[in-house]
Amino acid sequence: MPRIDPDRLLGDLHRLREFGAYETGVHRPTYTPVDMAARAWFGERMEAAGLSAELDGIGNMLGRSSRSGPAMLTGSHLESQNHAGWLDGALGCVYALEAARAIAGDPETADVAVDVAVFADEEGHYASFVGSRSATGLLTASDIDAARNRTDGTPLRDALAAAGLTGRPRLRLDTARYRGFIEAHIEQGDRLESAGLKIGVVTAIVAIWQYRITIEGEQNHAGTTGMARRRDAGLALTRLLSAIDAAFPAVAGPASVWTTGRITLEPGAPSIIPGRAQALFQFRDADPVVLDRMEAELKRLVAAANDGPCAIQLEALSQSRPAVMDEGLLRAIEAAAEAEAPGLAMRMPSGAGHDAQYLARIMPAAMLFVPSIGGVSHHWTENTADADLVLGAQVYAEAVARAARGP
Amino acid sequence: MPRIDPDRLLGDLHRLREFGAYETGVHRPTYTPVDMAARAWFGERMEAAGLSAELDGIGNMLGRSSRSGPAMLTGSHLESQNHAGWLDGALGCVYALEAARAIAGDPETADVAVDVAVFADEEGHYASFVGSRSATGLLTASDIDAARNRTDGTPLRDALAAAGLTGRPRLRLDTARYRGFIEAHIEQGDRLESAGLKIGVVTAIVAIWQYRITIEGEQNHAGTTGMARRRDAGLALTRLLSAIDAAFPAVAGPASVWTTGRITLEPGAPSIIPGRAQALFQFRDADPVVLDRMEAELKRLVAAANDGPCAIQLEALSQSRPAVMDEGLLRAIEAAAEAEAPGLAMRMPSGAGHDAQYLARIMPAAMLFVPSIGGVSHHWTENTADADLVLGAQVYAEAVARAARGP
Repeated sequence: MPRIDPDRLLGDLHRLREFGAYETGVHRPTYTPVDMAARAWFGERMEAAGLSAELDGIGNMLGRSSRSGPAMLTGSHLESQNHAGWLDGALGCVYALEAARAIAGDPETADVAVDVAVFADEEGHYASFVGSRSATGLLTASDIDAARNRTDGTPLRDALAAAGLTGRPRLRLDTARYRGFIEAHIEQGDRLESAGLKIGVVTAIVAIWQYRITIEGEQNHAGTTGMARRRDAGLALTRLLSAIDAAFPAVAGPASVWTTGRITLEPGAPSIIPGRAQALFQFRDADPVVLDRMEAELKRLVAAANDGPCAIQLEALSQSRPAVMDEGLLRAIEAAAEAEAPGLAMRMPSGAGHDAQYLARIMPAAMLFVPSIGGVSHHWTENTADADLVLGAQVYAEAVARAARGP
Repeated sequence: MPRIDPDRLLGDLHRLREFGAYETGVHRPTYTPVDMAARAWFGERMEAAGLSAELDGIGNMLGRSSRSGPAMLTGSHLESQNHAGWLDGALGCVYALEAARAIAGDPETADVAVDVAVFADEEGHYASFVGSRSATGLLTASDIDAARNRTDGTPLRDALAAAGLTGRPRLRLDTARYRGFIEAHIEQGDRLESAGLKIGVVTAIVAIWQYRITIEGEQNHAGTTGMARRRDAGLALTRLLSAIDAAFPAVAGPASVWTTGRITLEPGAPSIIPGRAQALFQFRDADPVVLDRMEAELKRLVAAANDGPCAIQLEALSQSRPAVMDEGLLRAIEAAAEAEAPGLAMRMPSGAGHDAQYLARIMPAAMLFVPSIGGVSHHWTENTADADLVLGAQVYAEAVARAARGP
């Protein structure tokens, strides 16, 4: 079985950290000069590993092995959230490169074809999963026309031009070449750390169902309007959110999460009874049955609240589908974990979205998680212990090698 | 007893409505050209009624009777909220002028001195109760230096200069001259209308106790952070507001009101657990015992909520005192109401603030309310039936005449 080189692995991770260094993390938004510089450097590293590296018209990179297939596809993304951590995305890319190197360097697996992919803008600076949607045929030219930077409004087309990508063809993955895709990532939660485990075997990437709740009441004077005759949209929202808080544990699954991320009261003045209230509410689960149950409960609570003095409207903004990971690939990861870290792996869903959810639409896909210290991610304090980084890379390389052999 | 002239009364009210006409209401912010034009016109009407009208350095006007005291002080304010109603403030000024005219015109009361005051910026475009605080000695030069227009940020000093008021002395009311102050106003609520009554005899102007609630939680990923380990500041706020909603009816008085006017979650993104939440919460009552009880309950609920995963801070932003109206003046209003509208008056607190609350600090003060159609105010649809306007003015004039005679 291939052995990864810990120094080479950590060296590459730390070199990548220099592109857009910010505090102990990185600020490397998609298509910025530091992001493009990181891509160029990573392309050189792929070439040095014997892969032919190609940068496409959306910023995706594919480092292709010269060996014929069936091949394993590996990789993740290189850009970061704004002022965020050094491992999110970068870890999956460097793990992929190290796996390709280790597998090519082991006589026992030197015949295995491992391609390394870097998907652009997984972090959604311009749109959700720009690169993996493009590579899987799910991003249209008009999607690109419409996309704008969520921080400064720059059109995606302008950003692609500034990055020198205009005119390059967009790469489509050749499904006939691949047995499957395995992506490594930091957990971004603390389940592994809490359980004292080292490897997360991702069974599914959860679906996100996002809603807007809009309540129409009656704007009025907060001093002269008695409590009994009020139609306070803000109070109606408080009561609805409180009812959700009370009822959801009974209908949710053990891994379900639900979140109210934004509340707006209008006009938002201290002495005016809010005439209008809005909230953004979402829940996530990997199980379609649980998702349906939570939505039914949400609708029931909204209907019940509509018996009050305000009119409540529930609007589904997006309802993604859960991405179920491939059982054969999961077993390859578990077998690798059992060999390198016996008893230290657990199956778990991913609460966050990842490129693997789009790859899963066109080929078998799976994910491996390593522990996040304190469960922190999307913040520059994000980190993982060196020993965990090394162990995770070894398990990953071995899982890719095992999966390449087929079931 | 004096008789008001309905045509003269309604004529003056409708003429005032032309200054800053907006839909069926008015837009007449303090110190704007239309507001100053309204003041100038009103000054002419006071002079025509035999009063000597003076405009002071803060925009207050005093129409002084040539008769020696003891006098009754009457009046209200002329400016409006932005895009608001035609009666709020204007009604109290025209009632005062009509009372002065009717009382001077009745041989039986022609010896009575009635002064008419117009207080500037009761609506708080620049600061709360600018004019009545100035006239009662409660507005300092540094208060004026600090005040800025809440809509466009213009310094009050600049607005006074633009209105031609710079250099004029500020008037201080001569407490030795006055038996008391009676202010008429629209109710701004629907208690009179609901009860089928015509005259509100205001017993007290409520205190407003305003708080900021700040909750510190932990900002985190809405997908990867399990429910059990969350410190969701927004959810903690929902739970606290829900607890207030459940507990306050038991500690509040029958006329108490409480309102959450603003809620802010940070960062306010759909997929991020709010790390910080803020709310503006206020309650009002005229009874200090009830106010203390509500505050104690609020503190108890905040303390109980602090046992949860988030840190909750309660900050009192302002705690005004209730202004109790003078019993002798209330009886004069009730006697006048009994003579003109038997059985159609009721005692009630004012849930909104009025100039009378500052006048009450230096002399006996009282207020009379007339019905508001649908309880609407601070909106251009605000209105009162003509018959109610006329009846209210008659009761007001008679109440002023009775009060002038002393207890």
